[in-house]
Amino acid sequence: MNGNNLPDRTAIEAAAARVGDRVRTTPVLRLGLRPFNLAGELVLKLECLQHTGSFKPRGAFNRVLSAGRVPDAGLIAASGGNHGAAVAYVALELGLPAEIFVPSIVVPSKLDRIRQYGADVRIGGDRYADALAASERRARDTGALAVHAYDDADVIAGQGGVAREFEAQAGTLDTVLVAVGGGGLVAGIAAWYAGRTRVVAVEPRTSRALDAALAAGEPVDVDVAGIAADSLGARRAGERAFAIARDTGVTSVLVDDENIRVAQRMLWKHTRVFAEPGGATALAAILSRAYTPQPGERVGVVVCGANGDPTVLA
Amino acid sequence: MNGNNLPDRTAIEAAAARVGDRVRTTPVLRLGLRPFNLAGELVLKLECLQHTGSFKPRGAFNRVLSAGRVPDAGLIAASGGNHGAAVAYVALELGLPAEIFVPSIVVPSKLDRIRQYGADVRIGGDRYADALAASERRARDTGALAVHAYDDADVIAGQGGVAREFEAQAGTLDTVLVAVGGGGLVAGIAAWYAGRTRVVAVEPRTSRALDAALAAGEPVDVDVAGIAADSLGARRAGERAFAIARDTGVTSVLVDDENIRVAQRMLWKHTRVFAEPGGATALAAILSRAYTPQPGERVGVVVCGANGDPTVLA
Repeated sequence: MNGNNLPDRTAIEAAAARVGDRVRTTPVLRLGLRPFNLAGELVLKLECLQHTGSFKPRGAFNRVLSAGRVPDAGLIAASGGNHGAAVAYVALELGLPAEIFVPSIVVPSKLDRIRQYGADVRIGGDRYADALAASERRARDTGALAVHAYDDADVIAGQGGVAREFEAQAGTLDTVLVAVGGGGLVAGIAAWYAGRTRVVAVEPRTSRALDAALAAGEPVDVDVAGIAADSLGARRAGERAFAIARDTGVTSVLVDDENIRVAQRMLWKHTRVFAEPGGATALAAILSRAYTPQPGERVGVVVCGANGDPTVLA
Repeated sequence: MNGNNLPDRTAIEAAAARVGDRVRTTPVLRLGLRPFNLAGELVLKLECLQHTGSFKPRGAFNRVLSAGRVPDAGLIAASGGNHGAAVAYVALELGLPAEIFVPSIVVPSKLDRIRQYGADVRIGGDRYADALAASERRARDTGALAVHAYDDADVIAGQGGVAREFEAQAGTLDTVLVAVGGGGLVAGIAAWYAGRTRVVAVEPRTSRALDAALAAGEPVDVDVAGIAADSLGARRAGERAFAIARDTGVTSVLVDDENIRVAQRMLWKHTRVFAEPGGATALAAILSRAYTPQPGERVGVVVCGANGDPTVLA
C-alpha cells in the first residue's frame, strides 16, 4: 500500500502470494491479425475461465485471507452476481457461511452459481446499489465480514493479479483494455502497470460510472441500464478505483449494447470463447473502433466473465 | 518418417515448422483437484480454441504445404464437418478453391463454417464413409488435391503438433486422453510421445473404430451412431493410425453418450469451456471412471473441438 492506502505493485504481489493456487492461472490466447482486421496484435486474457466464471475470486480471497479472524456469522456481500458467486465460492473453500444480496436483475446463471456454492441468497432491490444498502443494514445486525465488490484496497490488490499474470504470459503490452463496473478490476490492473502500459477503461454508454467520475473529477451517481448491467451496473465508481484511475492516467471509452452483442458473437465465431455481455465489453471497444490500435500496437483484452446465457449465440 | 512411412517425432517437428503461426498455440488450463474429485492433476489442452474450432487445421495445413504445387482445381476433402471446415480455412488462407463433401448428419455449426470460408459444399450420403467415397469419385474427375481427414502421414504429423505443444506447456504428463474418430489425432499424439507418456484413446461405445481395430488386429468396419457421430463417426480406423496406435501401446476405453453429455455440462460448469460432444469425449472417460487416474497421476485431456450447439447447456 502507498501513503493513501491505495494498493500498488507490492500489494498486488503480496495478494498473489497470499491467494496462491486458490485461483487459477488463466490462459491467454494470441490472435492472428486476420479475425478482426487489425493492424496490431491482439492477446486475450481468458479470465472468464477462472473459478466461478469471472475474475472476482481473486479479490474476494485476498480480502478474506487478509482479514485475520472471520466472525462466526461468516461473510456477507452485495453483488450483481459475479462477486456474489465468488464470495460464496470463497466461503465454501474456507468452510465459512455466507450471505449474498443480489438485485432483482440478477441473471439465472449467476443465481444458480451462488446457490450451488451453498450461500444464502437474498434479493435486495432492483439494482446493485439497492442490494449493497440492504447488505450493509444486515451486516450491522449479524456482524459478518463484509466483502465489498470493488471499493476495498484488498479486493483491488487481488484483482491486480490479473495484470501480474498477463504481463508474465504476454510480455510487454502497449495497451490493455478492460471493462469497468465499479472499477475494482481496472484499478487493480492500472495499479500493477502504473503507467508502463496504457490502460483503457471500457464501459457501456448506459452504465458509465468511471467515465462520469473522470469527467467530474470525483465519483458521481449515474443511471444504469443495458445488457451488461448485471455485471457492470454500478451506480457510482469506487473512491479508490477512481483515485487509482485518475493517478495512473486511465482513459475511458464507451460502447453501445449492440457493439457488445457483436463482440460476444465475433469472439465465439473466431475463438469459441464464450463471454457474458460484461465479459465482451472490452473487446467491443476494438470492434466498434471506440479504441483503434495503431499499426504494430500490442493490445491486451481482458475477457473477464462468462456467467451469461450461451443461447444468445444460437 | 520412419521406414514404414509412419510419422515420428522428427516428422512432427518438421510439420510444426512448416505450418508455423498459421495455427494458434492453444492454451492449457490446469484444474485443481476439487472440480472433478480426482486424486491426480488434470490439465486441459484447449484445442477447441484453434482456428475453425477444432485441431484439424494443423494436419490440413501440413498436408497442403507438403504437397508442392496444388492443382488448379484446388483442394477436395470429405468430412463430418470439422476437417471440412479446416480444409476450407486452409484454402481461404492460401488463396485456393476447395470442394468439401459432407454427410447428411453434418451439424449446422459445421456447415456454416465451411460456407463462411468460401468452399463449395456437397452432401455425399448419410455417413462420413459415403461422403468420402463421393469425394474420391469427384477427385478423379477434377484432379483436385485430396486432403484425407486422418489416413495420411502428413495429416497425422500435423496433428502431432498438439502433443508437441502440450508437452512444452504442461511438462511431463503421465497420461494423455484423446478422443478418436478415424485416428489422426491420437496417432499424431502417440507418435510424438512414442511411449514416454501413456496415451488413452477414448471412443463412444457406438462409434468404436479404433477399439475394434485393436481387438481385431487390423482395421475393421463398425456401425456408427450417437451424439458424437458427426465428429468421431469414422466407419473404420485409418491404416496408419492403427499401426501407430498398436506400435506405441495406445490403450482404448469406451464411453456412453450420457457420459459425453455429462462431460460437456461439467466442463461448462467448472471452466466455462464449451466442447462439442466429440470434444468432451476424452473428459467423459474420467468422469465415467472408464479411466481412473491413480493418486498423484498427472493427466492431460485434449478438448479437441467446439463446433456444436451451445444451447444444449441451457
